[in-house]
Amino acid sequence: MAKEQDKFKQVISHAKEYGYIFSSSEIYDGLSAVYDYGQNGVELKNNIKNYWWKSMVQMHEEIVGLDAAILMHPKTWEASGHVDAFNDPLIDNKDSKKRYRADVLVEDYVEKLEQKAQKEIKKAEKRFGDKFDEQEFVSTHPRVVKYRQQSKEILERLGESLNNGDLVDVRNLIDELEIACPASGSRDWTDVKQFNLMFGTKLGASAESASDLYLRPETAQGIFVNFANVQKTSRHKIPFGIAQIGKAFRNEIVARQFIFRQREFEQMEMQYFVRPGEELKWFEHWKETRYKWHQSLGLGEENYRFHDHENLAHYANAATDIEFKFPFGFKELEGIHSRTDFDLKAHEELSGKKLQFYDPELKENYTPFVVETSIGLDRMFLAVFSAALQDEDLGDGKSRTVLKIPPILAPHKAAIFPLLKRDGLPEIAKEIMKELQWDFNVIYDEKDAVGRRYRRQDAAGTPFCITVDHDTKEDGTVTIRHRDSMEQQRVKIEDLKAIIQKEVDFRTVLES
Amino acid sequence: MAKEQDKFKQVISHAKEYGYIFSSSEIYDGLSAVYDYGQNGVELKNNIKNYWWKSMVQMHEEIVGLDAAILMHPKTWEASGHVDAFNDPLIDNKDSKKRYRADVLVEDYVEKLEQKAQKEIKKAEKRFGDKFDEQEFVSTHPRVVKYRQQSKEILERLGESLNNGDLVDVRNLIDELEIACPASGSRDWTDVKQFNLMFGTKLGASAESASDLYLRPETAQGIFVNFANVQKTSRHKIPFGIAQIGKAFRNEIVARQFIFRQREFEQMEMQYFVRPGEELKWFEHWKETRYKWHQSLGLGEENYRFHDHENLAHYANAATDIEFKFPFGFKELEGIHSRTDFDLKAHEELSGKKLQFYDPELKENYTPFVVETSIGLDRMFLAVFSAALQDEDLGDGKSRTVLKIPPILAPHKAAIFPLLKRDGLPEIAKEIMKELQWDFNVIYDEKDAVGRRYRRQDAAGTPFCITVDHDTKEDGTVTIRHRDSMEQQRVKIEDLKAIIQKEVDFRTVLES
Repeated sequence: MAKEQDKFKQVISHAKEYGYIFSSSEIYDGLSAVYDYGQNGVELKNNIKNYWWKSMVQMHEEIVGLDAAILMHPKTWEASGHVDAFNDPLIDNKDSKKRYRADVLVEDYVEKLEQKAQKEIKKAEKRFGDKFDEQEFVSTHPRVVKYRQQSKEILERLGESLNNGDLVDVRNLIDELEIACPASGSRDWTDVKQFNLMFGTKLGASAESASDLYLRPETAQGIFVNFANVQKTSRHKIPFGIAQIGKAFRNEIVARQFIFRQREFEQMEMQYFVRPGEELKWFEHWKETRYKWHQSLGLGEENYRFHDHENLAHYANAATDIEFKFPFGFKELEGIHSRTDFDLKAHEELSGKKLQFYDPELKENYTPFVVETSIGLDRMFLAVFSAALQDEDLGDGKSRTVLKIPPILAPHKAAIFPLLKRDGLPEIAKEIMKELQWDFNVIYDEKDAVGRRYRRQDAAGTPFCITVDHDTKEDGTVTIRHRDSMEQQRVKIEDLKAIIQKEVDFRTVLES
Repeated sequence: MAKEQDKFKQVISHAKEYGYIFSSSEIYDGLSAVYDYGQNGVELKNNIKNYWWKSMVQMHEEIVGLDAAILMHPKTWEASGHVDAFNDPLIDNKDSKKRYRADVLVEDYVEKLEQKAQKEIKKAEKRFGDKFDEQEFVSTHPRVVKYRQQSKEILERLGESLNNGDLVDVRNLIDELEIACPASGSRDWTDVKQFNLMFGTKLGASAESASDLYLRPETAQGIFVNFANVQKTSRHKIPFGIAQIGKAFRNEIVARQFIFRQREFEQMEMQYFVRPGEELKWFEHWKETRYKWHQSLGLGEENYRFHDHENLAHYANAATDIEFKFPFGFKELEGIHSRTDFDLKAHEELSGKKLQFYDPELKENYTPFVVETSIGLDRMFLAVFSAALQDEDLGDGKSRTVLKIPPILAPHKAAIFPLLKRDGLPEIAKEIMKELQWDFNVIYDEKDAVGRRYRRQDAAGTPFCITVDHDTKEDGTVTIRHRDSMEQQRVKIEDLKAIIQKEVDFRTVLES
């Protein structure tokens, strides 16, 4: 646990130090749960977008893109159910006037029980040393058994009450557990109330004509309301898909875990429209396809797992998460959902417009069913970044920090160094840079000894370093050094482009 | 004038019919001045972004990217002056309760004067035929001279009053001109008041802790507040630049002209940090560089012009617009501004943080000066789209509608057709598609006669059509047809990639 927390802290500080992620408006002490992507972060983010878009849109004849606006007609969110049901259960402490998510208060209580259990385990481990059998211990030690049994019961009751909308019981649970306000220690609580997570704003200036708008809390609805326009103008038959990358906003009360849960975040979604009755076949297809996409990036098979939903959302008849092992444990990275015809039907009803497809084979009109693949772009960024960040033992007491970002996603593909700042070496290095930058994002660095420059580029995630030395002037060769293997090769300048291209080639990576 | 209006209408309807632009939330009758980009629109938009980013970031050693959030700390907008001074002058009609921009009411009045002048000109043209000398006529005809003189005086007075914040005089002007409410005909007006154009929202749930936020009305401030973080972690020396593409929001009262003036829009900005005193040299440099960038796309030199600002904004010491000839006339497409040290100094003062650079050559600390290049992405989209849309006379009473989008920006680079839907031709065509789609966004089309498919791809903007016929099976050749010249060539399948690549190659286009 401590090791995981250290790793997470290292991720956050490394992301700042190397220009990947800054707190938003940091000079004004930041805006909570909002982040800015720095000069390297924006490149990694764009490369992830690009890899997803090419794989999902360019490579699929039957999938097209879309870029719907963040501001949408407010009826959209009535139809989707967000106005009525997109809520968090909140509770206020009467003494401190502080507001909390009721479910988080209960979950924090459960976490404390688990910490107590961990304490017992560590104590026993210390006492018994090599003879310690953790499995045996946790299933027999009375206090540990009790803590874990309690935790299970509490979480089950909380889940059930929230699912049933029984906020009185959530409040009762807080009373029974004697949970106190973390700020004041007071146990004097208000009732639990639902709070809508959408950010509101007003369009227009005159008091009478101003209308209440929301910043979209998800991108999917932009696809649904455009279904008929896209189908008609693209002339695609079912099955076909619409893909979109865009921002969404949620007024989270408790937003933590760095860029994992932000108030402003980005989604990469594809909604696949299919014949009613065929949705589960396509659900399986997209589960498999998306899993392969993740594997193609080589972040480690052991870092992924599926988590099938047991409690399905009201609109779904099948749902699974692709979870990733973040520094704080396995968490949802991507969701694949069979959303039925819930959304299209809801929009049909409220708008009075038909959102149907005439199937020439079946010779009938129907409202298509939808299978969705929805991945958090910021989460994917965090997955890539945290899996890539490694402290490597090089033997002889030496070590290095290296960011093994897949080359196709790396911000800079190569760094070009002159060995020395004289003898015409910088000029040759700059010439190489100017030639390579037509095809790749590359960087020039002439400061410090070459060894230090290697370390700097390792930590920044650059897969290749190219050094120009005195031999270059004689024979037109340079040293190319590989980030991951640290191996060095002597190659001709004119071969550099092909060597780099091979490692960042879309086809090679996607088919791997 | 009438012809221009027709052209503009054609642009809007063509953009919808071919999947470029839809009204936002159209099934709910749309959201005013907000638009969604359809399956072709998103590709054109992404290609414009990409062309800009590569030219500005990848090709410039000293320019790096950034992706700051839309939500920023509210103090940002105090420092920038937007809280106090980002306003439109509004006026209400007491009878109709309708609200208007006071300056727009006056401008509409002036436009009516111009229409009267045009009427006189047309009448005289009809009467005098070939002998009509327009120049001579407008400088001597008493009514035309009067209309134009009046217009000039009115606009001058309006500009002066707005600049001085003299809203009483704006109101007086409306009274003197006897301007009536377009809805009710009433002349009973309220006072003119300032209305802030920023969209507001609230962060957080509790009444005490909720803070008022704004959706950013421009992207530039995201760069300024991150200046120190980016400079430090990228280790760039001055001069260097930070580039960003992102959304901004303005609660425009009168938003018209399609995607030219939207409430939600996207900017591509670069802020270049320079030594104080060197800003005007860099201002000239960026004027020239950005003009060349536009010329490289070949939209027609006659469609561009510079418009130097006479009245400079409070933060600027030089400013020019690159204007483009839209269907509604020459309007601002890109702005190049010498912003001095106004923004960085304002943030230093309010945050108490230093936003300075230690110049190792001068051996001193200073707050850099800033030269900005700021282009509206949606405006660039409209420029490309409207310049590309052409009705071409092909002789013999034939014509075609063609969208001559520069190939590097076109949504699909090629369409692949089987001549017939049998004899194994579709299979070969799909194989070619599958091979080409690794490198390009391509489309497959087997419906209707080939001639009709050509017209469809012409109108959609696809630069190449590739037809597979019976000879293909014999000799492995296909027909490639060029959108602009309509010429057809017989080429080998294996040469297709190189032929397309040549036309969409970044280096070739940028250096053209």
